[in-house]
Amino acid sequence: MSLTTVVWMLVVVGLWNRARALDNGLARTPTMGWLHWERFMCNTDCDADPDTCISERLYMQIADVMAAEGWREAGYQYVCIDDCWMDQSRDAGGRLQADPRRFPGGIKKLADYVHSKGLKLGIYADVGRTTCAGYPGSLAHYDTDAQTFVEWEVDLLKFDGCSMDATLLEEGYVNMSKALNRSGRPILYSCEWPLYEWPTQKRRATSGATSQTSTIHGAASNPSWTGLFRTRTSSSPQPVPLVIGNFGLSRDQQESQMALWAIMAAPLLMSNDLRSICGHSKELLQNRHIIAISQDELGKQGRHTAKVNHFEVWERPVSNGRLAIAVLNTLEIGGPRGFSLQAAPGWKMCSPLCNVTQILPQYEEVGVRMGHRVSVNPSGTALLVITSSSSHDKTFLQMEWSEKQTLL
Amino acid sequence: MSLTTVVWMLVVVGLWNRARALDNGLARTPTMGWLHWERFMCNTDCDADPDTCISERLYMQIADVMAAEGWREAGYQYVCIDDCWMDQSRDAGGRLQADPRRFPGGIKKLADYVHSKGLKLGIYADVGRTTCAGYPGSLAHYDTDAQTFVEWEVDLLKFDGCSMDATLLEEGYVNMSKALNRSGRPILYSCEWPLYEWPTQKRRATSGATSQTSTIHGAASNPSWTGLFRTRTSSSPQPVPLVIGNFGLSRDQQESQMALWAIMAAPLLMSNDLRSICGHSKELLQNRHIIAISQDELGKQGRHTAKVNHFEVWERPVSNGRLAIAVLNTLEIGGPRGFSLQAAPGWKMCSPLCNVTQILPQYEEVGVRMGHRVSVNPSGTALLVITSSSSHDKTFLQMEWSEKQTLL
Repeated sequence: MSLTTVVWMLVVVGLWNRARALDNGLARTPTMGWLHWERFMCNTDCDADPDTCISERLYMQIADVMAAEGWREAGYQYVCIDDCWMDQSRDAGGRLQADPRRFPGGIKKLADYVHSKGLKLGIYADVGRTTCAGYPGSLAHYDTDAQTFVEWEVDLLKFDGCSMDATLLEEGYVNMSKALNRSGRPILYSCEWPLYEWPTQKRRATSGATSQTSTIHGAASNPSWTGLFRTRTSSSPQPVPLVIGNFGLSRDQQESQMALWAIMAAPLLMSNDLRSICGHSKELLQNRHIIAISQDELGKQGRHTAKVNHFEVWERPVSNGRLAIAVLNTLEIGGPRGFSLQAAPGWKMCSPLCNVTQILPQYEEVGVRMGHRVSVNPSGTALLVITSSSSHDKTFLQMEWSEKQTLL
Repeated sequence: MSLTTVVWMLVVVGLWNRARALDNGLARTPTMGWLHWERFMCNTDCDADPDTCISERLYMQIADVMAAEGWREAGYQYVCIDDCWMDQSRDAGGRLQADPRRFPGGIKKLADYVHSKGLKLGIYADVGRTTCAGYPGSLAHYDTDAQTFVEWEVDLLKFDGCSMDATLLEEGYVNMSKALNRSGRPILYSCEWPLYEWPTQKRRATSGATSQTSTIHGAASNPSWTGLFRTRTSSSPQPVPLVIGNFGLSRDQQESQMALWAIMAAPLLMSNDLRSICGHSKELLQNRHIIAISQDELGKQGRHTAKVNHFEVWERPVSNGRLAIAVLNTLEIGGPRGFSLQAAPGWKMCSPLCNVTQILPQYEEVGVRMGHRVSVNPSGTALLVITSSSSHDKTFLQMEWSEKQTLL
């Protein structure tokens, strides 16, 4: 199997653009935050479901929890509104407006509240005639809407791609990008463009380089293990947020998502209910060793480098000559199986010695070893960071990385 | 969607045969026990993995735990050996023999040990030239092998269908059935025949009625949520054991498997590691309310009766005029959703009143109500038992059952 296209997309649209994008300080590392869609979807019935409907109350409560329970300190910064926040029509001045029953204070006050907690607010709009759920789209209103978001002091825009002629998609995304650039406020532009473009065209999204900063975050996709598993390898990729803390992933599968998202430098955008999340999921999402890999300053993305005996090996070079390695046990039947660092064909990293730190399944400073054997549960992932044990090997490590691409 | 074929198979091969089979007291209710395959597979390397290899030690330890930790009392009776117990060849007398390194005491002593714990021993053989893993098959040895199992005082035979010409499959299974009948010991005949026959022929397995007792248990299939989910609806069904307590199912998915297996009257054969199972999984597998539905004396199987708003409703009539109902939330995205007993189209059960006992997600004697609303997590299942609140309604309940088949 070749490098997964989802990784490639992240390269093209995400970190790859860094060098060419405006240097406004945004998104130097994968975005971290929370997004409502996969958990709360388009529930607008606040009479029946006051705690889980899309309303300012939900975002304020999430912001409260993020500030109070270590999420902000762990790096999760953005509280992101997804589809279904709007009123059914624009106001008399042609501006987007929030549903007045569900957002009585309006978006500006919500942004102030989120900022007062030391967090940032994300909002949602659509490049076409309507949003995916049928609310007003931004087509022919790009400048107005960019200006509105600036006035509200919004910090991120998820710009969706529904209800738009495919041939106009690129122009629409570029035009909104320009409108944001002109607006004067640094707003993280999180566009869903490649997701919509991918099925029809496989060209590189180079035009995105003129935008402020681009990254991908979650489309509405199936947050089950099968869905995530497919994301990893699909030719029509649908990147998904972290669904750790919801209902569909076993403990091992949750660890796999966290480890692989860190290795792939995918955005760490959670879509769950932080108000009621269980201890294990919280601990995993706040694991500082995993987050350090995700946010590593070297800014390189990891890749799938080997397939051995129903294990998938993923590697990401990180700062100080280290290499982060994720080993996914793809054999879902049976029990825990041992994987040896020396098992990957062509792999000389730990030959003869390397310094191993194990992060998952349990943190352990293993030390300098001739390789390392780790037990990996079915559908689980071991996550390790290794350092070569001599300066000679550090050089070798870099060579190793490019050689390894021939393995697949 | 029509009634799932897996259910139909269970009807045909399992309970349906009861009336025609020899009345030897076996398998009047779905078999309960433990089977090694899905968790331990064909690991024969006892040097590297002494605790998890296929050896007499494994079955003795499982028997110890089943006797000591409430499994036997909950109803789990059989400790079943699957493939890979044999030596590579038959003995000088043409008899099957256990691998002498992994089973130094032999199967007879193992059976004695298991019996001493108040449990029963299951063994594995194959209708064809070799077993699925390549060990000696029973073809041309049916009488010898049946006699061997009787001498060893084995209580169940899982008879697999590998390495056999499809046209001879039926004859082979029937001949082994006759050999067991002649042997004089009541051995539960758990044949995999329909599993192998299904892809090519859809006739009813009526010939099975001449065997002692037939039932289906787990083939080697994918124990992930997707696999289970497919089992439920596949046109080429692969019934799987309970994999609760392993690595691939979330808590809600584990509850769904237990509830649906009870409703379908599927065998409760666990394939997990009872020595290290977590508290929640143990509690679920030993839940006496769910097991009571599985083992209900009425002996009827449940059916998929309605599909409403991404909920699947399954119903099983149980003794004393009651109805067990499982409600599966098939929408894997989003949060918990409410299901009302009155929501199923054409359903008049709780109209105007019924007496509701909720078993999953939490046990609660709800009492006499006008319907009942239950919250079901994504990929989770609510399990309820209802009784009509008047004698008039009890009659109605029986009618309801036959009428309901038109809903699908």
